[in-house]
Amino acid sequence: MPESPIRKLVPYAEAAKERGIEVIHLNIGQPDIKTPQIALDAVKNNDLEILAYSRTEGSEAYRQKIAKYYAKNDIDVTASQIIVTTGGSEALAFAMNTIADMGDEIIIPEPFYANYNGFATASGLNVVPVTSYIEDNFALPPIEEFEKLITTRTRAILICNPGNPTGYLYSKEEIKKLAAIVKKHDLFLVADEVYREFTYEGREHYSILQEAGLEKHAIVVDSVSKRYSMCGARIGCLVSKNKEVIQTALKFAQARLSPPTYAQIASEAALETPQRYFDAVKEEYVSRRDLLITELNKIEGIKVGNPQGAFYCIVELPIKNADKFAQWLLESFNTNGATVMVAPAAGFYATEGLGLNQVRIAYVLEKEEIKKAVHILGEALKVYND
Amino acid sequence: MPESPIRKLVPYAEAAKERGIEVIHLNIGQPDIKTPQIALDAVKNNDLEILAYSRTEGSEAYRQKIAKYYAKNDIDVTASQIIVTTGGSEALAFAMNTIADMGDEIIIPEPFYANYNGFATASGLNVVPVTSYIEDNFALPPIEEFEKLITTRTRAILICNPGNPTGYLYSKEEIKKLAAIVKKHDLFLVADEVYREFTYEGREHYSILQEAGLEKHAIVVDSVSKRYSMCGARIGCLVSKNKEVIQTALKFAQARLSPPTYAQIASEAALETPQRYFDAVKEEYVSRRDLLITELNKIEGIKVGNPQGAFYCIVELPIKNADKFAQWLLESFNTNGATVMVAPAAGFYATEGLGLNQVRIAYVLEKEEIKKAVHILGEALKVYND
Repeated sequence: MPESPIRKLVPYAEAAKERGIEVIHLNIGQPDIKTPQIALDAVKNNDLEILAYSRTEGSEAYRQKIAKYYAKNDIDVTASQIIVTTGGSEALAFAMNTIADMGDEIIIPEPFYANYNGFATASGLNVVPVTSYIEDNFALPPIEEFEKLITTRTRAILICNPGNPTGYLYSKEEIKKLAAIVKKHDLFLVADEVYREFTYEGREHYSILQEAGLEKHAIVVDSVSKRYSMCGARIGCLVSKNKEVIQTALKFAQARLSPPTYAQIASEAALETPQRYFDAVKEEYVSRRDLLITELNKIEGIKVGNPQGAFYCIVELPIKNADKFAQWLLESFNTNGATVMVAPAAGFYATEGLGLNQVRIAYVLEKEEIKKAVHILGEALKVYND
Repeated sequence: MPESPIRKLVPYAEAAKERGIEVIHLNIGQPDIKTPQIALDAVKNNDLEILAYSRTEGSEAYRQKIAKYYAKNDIDVTASQIIVTTGGSEALAFAMNTIADMGDEIIIPEPFYANYNGFATASGLNVVPVTSYIEDNFALPPIEEFEKLITTRTRAILICNPGNPTGYLYSKEEIKKLAAIVKKHDLFLVADEVYREFTYEGREHYSILQEAGLEKHAIVVDSVSKRYSMCGARIGCLVSKNKEVIQTALKFAQARLSPPTYAQIASEAALETPQRYFDAVKEEYVSRRDLLITELNKIEGIKVGNPQGAFYCIVELPIKNADKFAQWLLESFNTNGATVMVAPAAGFYATEGLGLNQVRIAYVLEKEEIKKAVHILGEALKVYND
């Protein structure tokens, strides 16, 4: 098991804090946005006397409401095509266990969410990366690049849309290209769509579940974590119109009995969150992103993409090794008693040697903090020499 | 993935209910005991505004309190030797992923909790059963039987103590025998001790963590589910004094981010449950068990062990195939409009052909219901012929 790129830095961040240094966290995906009150209240007002197991596949009422949520998003699925999971993480683990055997391969555009590695390792799968580039804003690599990598052991292509850590939103055309190739080679297309709501400038998210003819191939991983700022709920779901996929995933689900009950109460209520909540959240993220990109672009030698969704971006820095730089920021640097923590991007690449001069920045902080953090980053780069 | 022995029967139970038949569930492990009010209140009175991730290893405060709980149970561990998990299920999955690679073997006395199969399958491990017998009350098989099964691929022995589905409580001497063999062959000893509190007639539970010299070998899987009748919380923990085990398990834990936050609030508060709650619960289970065994023994041709812990027992019936019998009970039998659902025991054995005439009965119902259910079982056996 590879260690998470952020985890290695935690002791350095803790040591910095012990020395009285303020550490601004550009590294984390925990939003500071408040959870919808309706979800919090549902838990506070629950009247359970026995905190019992729910159904393995999640409560019937909740799954019915999830199906309605998808219908509102032009995705036509039924409750029986949904398994409620313990976070998007578990949906991903179920997907991998369901579609592949030990030693099988799964193609993933890199850079990708580092925890995909953890689930692949636990399931005995080999991750085969296909590289996307900051110069292309991390758009889908040419489909021939995927084609080259397909072997008899390939079982699936996995995408994250919009992307963590890239912020890239795949276009309908790109999804159609992926649909064509998975149909041609009879593969699964797994899409992590947990950031579905976070698309900017009026761009529309196109789900793989909206693509006709992909019923047997498409598996969606979803989660309430970011949508409702409920990361601690640990509720997600796996969605597929392929009956066999659902039946097999259900067997893995049965082994762990059921998803958490309180969190389902919160998640079911969260589906009633008014649209103005999302509008406000989106507006906030757009202004944070705009500020972040504007401020970053003032720093000499920096390259940054144009994130169209989620709340991350990859930034290329005028340095050799972001691991060392991130550690140095915490160990040896501060401006007026403050420094920043960034996520070195090499951990988001499966290809050795890629992303060494890149970091991932999450814009889940208030604008004042973002501005201050980018200023610190600029000051640091002025004096850092490696 | 094998299907759970109970799951297959669910549609028959549902059909019976639709025909207006009352189905008494002797098959399930969901206690009807109320959750301690202190745990329920902690969640109702929480003042979270953002339902955020907790720490991957569980909140520091909660882990400190778990360590104190163990100290009260004569188990000397620190917070750093504890990882909070999403149910005992996840602790078991982490243990398996941590100690073994694909194709490795794990020896388990059978009959055993059927979901062990699911986790072994997901981790690519092979379960090697060593049979225990109803005639011996499912005591630990002779240690030579384990010795015979140890190969170069054997990584661990896994026990459940007290046992689901047997109700057997291993003695200190039996634990010492297991300790000797795992030390001799440098194996792990994994103990599922989630029923620790449920021991009867003053018998004391002896944890593998109490056994001196087993520090490198012992891994305990624990859970709040049954202890506080909080199955729906989905909180458990993995405990080991072996640093390497904790470090590796933590990497798997990082991939799934964190255990559920609300459930940790409930579980932390549950640790303050007064002793009188457990005394009352124990007294209730003992009287249920006594009634169950007394009533069962009135039925001709039945063989039943003497459960000393947990709330299950294996019952041997004068029939050929309990799968068929259990289905027949739901499909074709009722007494005054009522029937029973039992768990066929073959699913608890890894050895093909064992347990075919056995069922598991859980005594988590009120005494009136238990008496009625056993009466129905007796009536059914009078007319069933196979």
